[in-house]
Amino acid sequence: MQHVIGVLRWDQETCMPPGAVAERAEQLALLEGQVHELLIAPEIGELIAAGEARTDLDHADRAFLRELRRTHDRETRLPVDLVTAIAHQATVNHASWVAAREASDFGLFRDDLQETLRLTREKADHLGFQDTRYDPLLDDFEPWMSTAELAAVLGALRGPLVDLLERITGAAVTIDDEVLRRGYDVSAQRAFSDRLLAALGFSLHTGRLDVSAHPFSATLGAADGRLTTRFQPNLLSASVFGTIHECGHGLHGLGVAPELATSSLGDGASLGICESQSRFWENLIGRRRAFWEHFYPQLQPRFPALAGVDLDRFYRAINAVKPSFIRVEADEVTYNLHILLRFSLERRMVDGDLQAGDLPDAWREESRALLGIVPERDADGVLQDIHWSMFAIGYFPTYSLGNLYSAQFHAAMARDVPDWEERVRGGRFADILDWLRERIHRHGRVYPAAELCRRVTGEALDARFFIDYLNAKFGELYRL
Amino acid sequence: MQHVIGVLRWDQETCMPPGAVAERAEQLALLEGQVHELLIAPEIGELIAAGEARTDLDHADRAFLRELRRTHDRETRLPVDLVTAIAHQATVNHASWVAAREASDFGLFRDDLQETLRLTREKADHLGFQDTRYDPLLDDFEPWMSTAELAAVLGALRGPLVDLLERITGAAVTIDDEVLRRGYDVSAQRAFSDRLLAALGFSLHTGRLDVSAHPFSATLGAADGRLTTRFQPNLLSASVFGTIHECGHGLHGLGVAPELATSSLGDGASLGICESQSRFWENLIGRRRAFWEHFYPQLQPRFPALAGVDLDRFYRAINAVKPSFIRVEADEVTYNLHILLRFSLERRMVDGDLQAGDLPDAWREESRALLGIVPERDADGVLQDIHWSMFAIGYFPTYSLGNLYSAQFHAAMARDVPDWEERVRGGRFADILDWLRERIHRHGRVYPAAELCRRVTGEALDARFFIDYLNAKFGELYRL
Repeated sequence: MQHVIGVLRWDQETCMPPGAVAERAEQLALLEGQVHELLIAPEIGELIAAGEARTDLDHADRAFLRELRRTHDRETRLPVDLVTAIAHQATVNHASWVAAREASDFGLFRDDLQETLRLTREKADHLGFQDTRYDPLLDDFEPWMSTAELAAVLGALRGPLVDLLERITGAAVTIDDEVLRRGYDVSAQRAFSDRLLAALGFSLHTGRLDVSAHPFSATLGAADGRLTTRFQPNLLSASVFGTIHECGHGLHGLGVAPELATSSLGDGASLGICESQSRFWENLIGRRRAFWEHFYPQLQPRFPALAGVDLDRFYRAINAVKPSFIRVEADEVTYNLHILLRFSLERRMVDGDLQAGDLPDAWREESRALLGIVPERDADGVLQDIHWSMFAIGYFPTYSLGNLYSAQFHAAMARDVPDWEERVRGGRFADILDWLRERIHRHGRVYPAAELCRRVTGEALDARFFIDYLNAKFGELYRL
Repeated sequence: MQHVIGVLRWDQETCMPPGAVAERAEQLALLEGQVHELLIAPEIGELIAAGEARTDLDHADRAFLRELRRTHDRETRLPVDLVTAIAHQATVNHASWVAAREASDFGLFRDDLQETLRLTREKADHLGFQDTRYDPLLDDFEPWMSTAELAAVLGALRGPLVDLLERITGAAVTIDDEVLRRGYDVSAQRAFSDRLLAALGFSLHTGRLDVSAHPFSATLGAADGRLTTRFQPNLLSASVFGTIHECGHGLHGLGVAPELATSSLGDGASLGICESQSRFWENLIGRRRAFWEHFYPQLQPRFPALAGVDLDRFYRAINAVKPSFIRVEADEVTYNLHILLRFSLERRMVDGDLQAGDLPDAWREESRALLGIVPERDADGVLQDIHWSMFAIGYFPTYSLGNLYSAQFHAAMARDVPDWEERVRGGRFADILDWLRERIHRHGRVYPAAELCRRVTGEALDARFFIDYLNAKFGELYRL
């Protein structure tokens, strides 16, 4: 059923004619209602309890019960009235958020955000928590992780990132990405994206690449991974790294063991783990010099704009660091500062310490402290992301978790595949992909993220891998 | 639910990666099983009976009950074991039919066809009939029409068609379609198809055009009409008339009144009525000289192959008549002879007078009698169509019904819109489309096909409109 819902959503983003949006919403509501009814059915509750009482189940079956229990309890605890009110408010929000962003006028969204926060707190209260209201919200996206654990691991990022950014902006070396912003033929970008997918091991026998306004990846079946990207005629990096990023998601989804893939253990362990797989390929592999030693000779002849641009200049351009307002355009160093900002603000909003009306000022304050810049327009600040309008509160931190996991996984891979960089340089990615499949992909959601991390890397999630990676890479690039 | 199933099927034909086929079959079986369970639910039967007892229902509600009764009774009468056996045999058939066609060896499909006929007869016996076993099979595709009525109206075609074909093949005038079989750039064909859709009133706000191996049209929502076509680099007419044909289906599906469109009255009255709408545009409008007086000046400059080919030569090429083996490539004169052949053979098979093993000889015999030619290879004869392997027995005649309805509807339209040909010549199709919408499209399935025909044309379906149309058009073309 979830895969069928996935088909409807994928179609909506990539193919559906605009006039069909109202009935598609009804189609989705119908199927999602059916899934909800199945999940909260008393018989399911009894079956879960009967399963939990058994001692003869294997590891995967116990994990299946664990995840079904978690979902059953969550869905059962939410009153139908509240679910309906949230769905209604989300629809209202979409219109007001779009209007507010277009006019760059937060006032048009303020009251809806305040109501969203009220409903979100009510939702958290029904779901229940011991420590903080943020816990059950985070759990929706990063199962089994507490806010305290999250705050500890993300907190370790702040100082080193701010410090690194200061050293970079004060460095004698300057790097810009002007070469990426020239004219790039869209059909040639498409052809290069196809080549990247093939080289990284994403087969069109079990997947495809389409175009959508916001790139995403969706698993519509155990052997049906759909990727999207976007081709901008004046920004080469958008399609190149968008494609590699979504390819990482797609390889993850298609790598789940067949016996798990169509069960509720077929998803990744958490959004943080999922994001680690896209970032692993996009950044830890795809922004390496070795990667472009292989691909740049294939890329350069396709685009007149790259004539005379040598590998070194291209490599620096794709790794230029510069504080900016927009999260999705941020580089590896500043990206997580955008997340720390949002995490801080949404915790305060959930706790009731920050009202919607005070959000724009708080945003500017945090932006100055973390990035050293302040957006003049709300469209470039507090209104830039769709997440809060969709009740995705507790979602942003999983992006940073993905970055941290990706670096920690990469360090483990580098131990197990010592010549990994030579392989990247030669365009041979099969052993790296096999390592990911064997250690991570095939397990689906059998292990909670924390346990998976310990099994893969030998220790708990630790920000130092990511910080060390950034310091080494950008220390060299900027001669710090 | 039917529209959701439509999305899954459309995706399968146009987008889905090949590796996903097994799980997609499971997704479809799940949803189709849900629809079946809903349709046969005893509560539904009770609600239908309660509705039928009421005297205060309006016309549309009574029609809704009539169609629900028909479907409920049909679905309820079929034992689950039989439905399962048919679904299983259809899967087996697909493989053996494909293999048989590829090898042009009917023996590879014979036993499966024999079993298909046995199951089909068993199905007909469960559905029940008074006159002939073919009745309940026909009813699946052409509701409320009896085999006797069908045989009468199609029987009137045979003599005049065979006679017209003999006069054409004996005529001094010869016409061939060589100019259509030159090299035609596929992207220019695509652009011209898009222009055709726009000119005929098919909006991309509520629909789209894709490519598939076998062109089809599917309604995925009240405002979501999906068309497909195919572009062959050496056959211009395939995309041009394929697009117009599917556009006719699409306009029909999108023209249903909103209050009916998402109910079981949202389909066309019957497959014959549906096919009348595609044929109306493809042949009665699209193969007219007036149509190309408007479009040929737009078509010709796009294709070097048409340089020096004047309108008259092009018009004759798209109306060349020649007996051929393959139904889907047949012209307007011979097409229905292909159907008469199949209708005759499938009636005999359903009655038990013709065994699968004797089918190829019977095919050649009928082909000689009707078309004057005999296929040497079974792939060009009895194995060419997928229908029987899919248990679509009783389907073929609806193609001919569509041709007959299209001519009869066209004659009625010509009375109501006297300057219709001038409008076509000027590329102004809105009044013709409005006429179809008002008389046919908006009613969906409210009226059975026979009643709709009387309401639209003032009389029962009669083959003479089609015969008169062919005699007039081809009499002039071939100077008979």
